Amino acid sequence: MKVGGTSYRTIWLADDGETVEIIDQTRLPHEFVTVPLNSAADAAVAIRDMWVRGAPLIGATAAYGMALAMRDDASDTSLADAYDLLLATRPTAVNLRWALDDVTARLRPLPPDQRQEAAFARAAEICDEDVEICQSIGEHGAALIRDIAAKKPAGAPVNILTHCNAGWLATVDWGTATAPVYVSHNKGIPVHVWVDETRPRNQGAALTAWELGEHGVPHTVIADNAGGHLMQRGEVDLVITGTDRTTAHGDVCNKIGTYLKALAARDNDVPFYVGLPGPTIDWTLANGRDIPIEERAAREVTHIAGKTDDGRLETIQLTPDGSTAGNPAFDVTPARLVTGLITERGIAPASRDGLAALYPDRAIGAAE
Amino acid sequence: MKVGGTSYRTIWLADDGETVEIIDQTRLPHEFVTVPLNSAADAAVAIRDMWVRGAPLIGATAAYGMALAMRDDASDTSLADAYDLLLATRPTAVNLRWALDDVTARLRPLPPDQRQEAAFARAAEICDEDVEICQSIGEHGAALIRDIAAKKPAGAPVNILTHCNAGWLATVDWGTATAPVYVSHNKGIPVHVWVDETRPRNQGAALTAWELGEHGVPHTVIADNAGGHLMQRGEVDLVITGTDRTTAHGDVCNKIGTYLKALAARDNDVPFYVGLPGPTIDWTLANGRDIPIEERAAREVTHIAGKTDDGRLETIQLTPDGSTAGNPAFDVTPARLVTGLITERGIAPASRDGLAALYPDRAIGAAE
Repeated sequence: MKVGGTSYRTIWLADDGETVEIIDQTRLPHEFVTVPLNSAADAAVAIRDMWVRGAPLIGATAAYGMALAMRDDASDTSLADAYDLLLATRPTAVNLRWALDDVTARLRPLPPDQRQEAAFARAAEICDEDVEICQSIGEHGAALIRDIAAKKPAGAPVNILTHCNAGWLATVDWGTATAPVYVSHNKGIPVHVWVDETRPRNQGAALTAWELGEHGVPHTVIADNAGGHLMQRGEVDLVITGTDRTTAHGDVCNKIGTYLKALAARDNDVPFYVGLPGPTIDWTLANGRDIPIEERAAREVTHIAGKTDDGRLETIQLTPDGSTAGNPAFDVTPARLVTGLITERGIAPASRDGLAALYPDRAIGAAE
Repeated sequence: MKVGGTSYRTIWLADDGETVEIIDQTRLPHEFVTVPLNSAADAAVAIRDMWVRGAPLIGATAAYGMALAMRDDASDTSLADAYDLLLATRPTAVNLRWALDDVTARLRPLPPDQRQEAAFARAAEICDEDVEICQSIGEHGAALIRDIAAKKPAGAPVNILTHCNAGWLATVDWGTATAPVYVSHNKGIPVHVWVDETRPRNQGAALTAWELGEHGVPHTVIADNAGGHLMQRGEVDLVITGTDRTTAHGDVCNKIGTYLKALAARDNDVPFYVGLPGPTIDWTLANGRDIPIEERAAREVTHIAGKTDDGRLETIQLTPDGSTAGNPAFDVTPARLVTGLITERGIAPASRDGLAALYPDRAIGAAE
């Protein structure tokens, strides 16, 4: 997608063909800074300190981290050390482990002098595969948006509400929830996005608003409280969110607050869709209630960072000194509230049968 | 309620019997500062600049503003000027106009030399009446809380979720939504309050958390996004909010986001109650959808104020420079989602019949 008129991915090779570059996402939206990664250690810092975030981008960064390790030392020891170093950065990230396992399994059988080239090639392939998946999600979702646009007065924008950042910043390009928006916008279908600010970490206000703005997509930031009212007043045509984890029955675990928007969508007959890459479906799990929900630091609720009038980045405290805060990071939207799941293979009803029909190859033995 | 161990109202007479004192609520929760009002002009500034807020407290401050005007000059001209001055501060505040009309109607027939005493007496009476109403709401609501406590293991707190600040800071004492909490706490019924931070103006994180903390009520601040998840996990026994305006049919117009919590309460069989003084029911209005919703400044969403680590108050920008924000201030929770309305006369079903049974004297000719 575009930043300041130039097309970017979230991770790319510099002109020298072996320096990896990323965007330091912790400085968005107030500063756009790209950072070179020159070693596996650099890649580990980028993942650990959340300069990069989002499952697909974390996986891609880890793959390139392995490639950088091979460039410096292609021995078996180096391979094992890089694996351990990178895995330790965010040990619960499923996609991180997947990418490291994938790259390692391909490199280990090779003689050391072939490993650098193979690793860079595989990292590039992982990125390209992610872009392809997201673009397909975008095409399938854009068909929905086009159908809604066709029922509105000519030129009237389709109003899409999204929560958190399932944008291109969380993937290599396009995003998941945002892919249908970007594809539609690029095709000239008029869209306008209501961006939930997404407290407490404000990924909507900080990241989704920034990426939509840079790409030129009309959007309006709103407090997370506002979406229900906008739906009551007919100002939302469609909700699209991402998902961190989707069960075999179509329950959706996503950023805290997603469930409230799904309830409001149902109460107002607004379609509620979730964009997701098929590989993120957890076929072993039936009921979303069984997903443990991470409780994050209270400080994310009690404090917030932003830019002062004179341009400094500053963190301020919002609550009284004596008050504590609770901070569940995700909630589960039951499948009954989900109109459909937009995947790279098409749109599935949020049900075991719906998902199995789209992924017969993967659904064998899925949780009952 | 208590602040630092001392009992306060939100407005009171100083020991000299003619200086009015208030809390500068704009400096909460980071600074507790009381301010003397020595003239009608002082009272006007306090209302206009939102040092005082909440319909009952605005009315009480206006009444004392009239009293201060009479102390300085009890002429008919002064009476009319003070009325105009105070009304202009927040021209759409219904309770402000009511208090000014009430005081003026009582003073005008009196000879000027009796007006000061009568005005101070009436202002005190308005305050006492509000305290009595809120305390009654508290008693009726506390009965609900006691019933829930009786079904829980001994000593287990009743978990109450509230949105915005319908606390004692918005009234003269007790609050509306918080009155049942304070009455229960004072009676030794164990309570714990989930405090929605209530973006964008953060009245929950800043005011409700502060007043609960000062009075010693256990509480936890949460992002507005978290309440649905907490209800799904059985961690909320009861929701109690306030209301800005209630229709004759029981629709509730309250701070933006209230509707989302009512939907979640319904989806999880959590009782959803609204605390309100009977006089705030709008008998002329049937359907909440007919209430125009104020759109406030985008800056309330894009910027936020708080305390830096070194104790300064600072305002920071949360969104990218190019992004705009939408800011509807209220939403409407339809009566079908409201379990009951807690009033000073008891608890009414949220329906025309329910309200009319409690207020037969006022419901005559109410909107069909």
